[in-house]
Amino acid sequence: MRNDKHMGPRELCTGGEWVYGRNPVVEVLQAERRTISEVILPEPAKNEADEIAWIRMTARERGLVVRTEDRKRLDMLTRGGHHQGVAVKTTGYPYVDFADILEDVRADENATVVVLDHLEDPQNVGSVLRTACAIGATGVILPEDRGCGVTPAAVRASAGASEYLKVARVVNLVRAMKQLKEENMWFTGLDWGEDAKNYTDIDFRGRAGLVVGAEGNGISRLVRDTCDFIAVLPMIGQIESLNAGVAAAVCMYEMLRQRS
Amino acid sequence: MRNDKHMGPRELCTGGEWVYGRNPVVEVLQAERRTISEVILPEPAKNEADEIAWIRMTARERGLVVRTEDRKRLDMLTRGGHHQGVAVKTTGYPYVDFADILEDVRADENATVVVLDHLEDPQNVGSVLRTACAIGATGVILPEDRGCGVTPAAVRASAGASEYLKVARVVNLVRAMKQLKEENMWFTGLDWGEDAKNYTDIDFRGRAGLVVGAEGNGISRLVRDTCDFIAVLPMIGQIESLNAGVAAAVCMYEMLRQRS
Repeated sequence: MRNDKHMGPRELCTGGEWVYGRNPVVEVLQAERRTISEVILPEPAKNEADEIAWIRMTARERGLVVRTEDRKRLDMLTRGGHHQGVAVKTTGYPYVDFADILEDVRADENATVVVLDHLEDPQNVGSVLRTACAIGATGVILPEDRGCGVTPAAVRASAGASEYLKVARVVNLVRAMKQLKEENMWFTGLDWGEDAKNYTDIDFRGRAGLVVGAEGNGISRLVRDTCDFIAVLPMIGQIESLNAGVAAAVCMYEMLRQRS
Repeated sequence: MRNDKHMGPRELCTGGEWVYGRNPVVEVLQAERRTISEVILPEPAKNEADEIAWIRMTARERGLVVRTEDRKRLDMLTRGGHHQGVAVKTTGYPYVDFADILEDVRADENATVVVLDHLEDPQNVGSVLRTACAIGATGVILPEDRGCGVTPAAVRASAGASEYLKVARVVNLVRAMKQLKEENMWFTGLDWGEDAKNYTDIDFRGRAGLVVGAEGNGISRLVRDTCDFIAVLPMIGQIESLNAGVAAAVCMYEMLRQRS
């Protein structure tokens, strides 16, 4: 799957980005959705990790130039990320057009779409992408304006799962949700409130969308109003809070459970 | 709940630790299970965050000395943790005796125990603790020898939920599990293998234990042999991996779903 034609203007402007960490780099190379211009690896060593050896071999097969880089510079290139000595300079994240996801939803009566409503923490974005990939989600939708996109830190947090997912950025989340609703998709927002039902009481069969709100603020009003259901996870301990990525994962696996 | 008497030798030796971050410090103060000797806060500001204002007020009420500290020194004290300008010097994590958890299990026919088999990443330990607290777990058991204990980084990752949970360190995980099995607790190990069943096909009603294995290596052999069931989460995407904390959370919420 090649999505170069879907590359957004931001990627073209910045001239690419550094994806780092063993798993993310392996997946970027496996998925073959980005163009790689540089590969940074540690000096060859006798007992190097399998992933490093695989990256080295694959880079050689594809005629990519491999070089080493000192730790400080690598820390800088990856903005202090957990790079494990490994990084590749690539074109920006290969977002797809929303129309592409819409088409897949039309073709699959059990399509699942995850909407990220202005999540700001790349850890949470990456965590949701990883689980969305695991449950075989049709696609993920993000707003173009604010919030965290699929940055290298989010790719890292997704363990590279981002490279296999269809993620679209849209100007208007509500409009995109309405278009999906016309294809018989029902949306559930993960949020609190008097209208919230226990997540296990919601029927997720058929075409189902899950909206995950921003950390702290939750789902924005207009997006919330566009949801068909509001779901809450029961919490019976003394602390009533769950990590956003964890709450989304519990809900995504409930969707999968109900379909099988 | 005060557990000073359960404080392990390590805490007594090191003379305490720095718990950091807004939520963790709030919860340490709320739970009142640790003795606090120092409080570090930012300079008072007009529109400071609610948590900071609450910590400042509570520290004053309890007669604790509050001081400011420059960023570099705070980075050092918290070992580069995400401290948000807030830290307290406290006695070590208030582990409970295993006997305490055993007693609670005897008294509750729906008791839930989570066993962490040598998890190494404090992020994962914290994530599991946070969800265990949310589902109202009876207790958490860790091995004393290796793996990550409830360090300040794990407390941070749990958003302070650690302060409300009963966590026991044991010399021998298998022996502890066998003692719990004598109380009619059934153990499910989250792992792979031919003997693994889909996690939703396991009956989690009654006294149930969940074993979460180390990142990468999974559950150790003897612990695995002590489990009654091995559970796996279905993964239908192109990447067959989930974050350990996420996989554990999905399983813990399935336990809760089956009980309600």
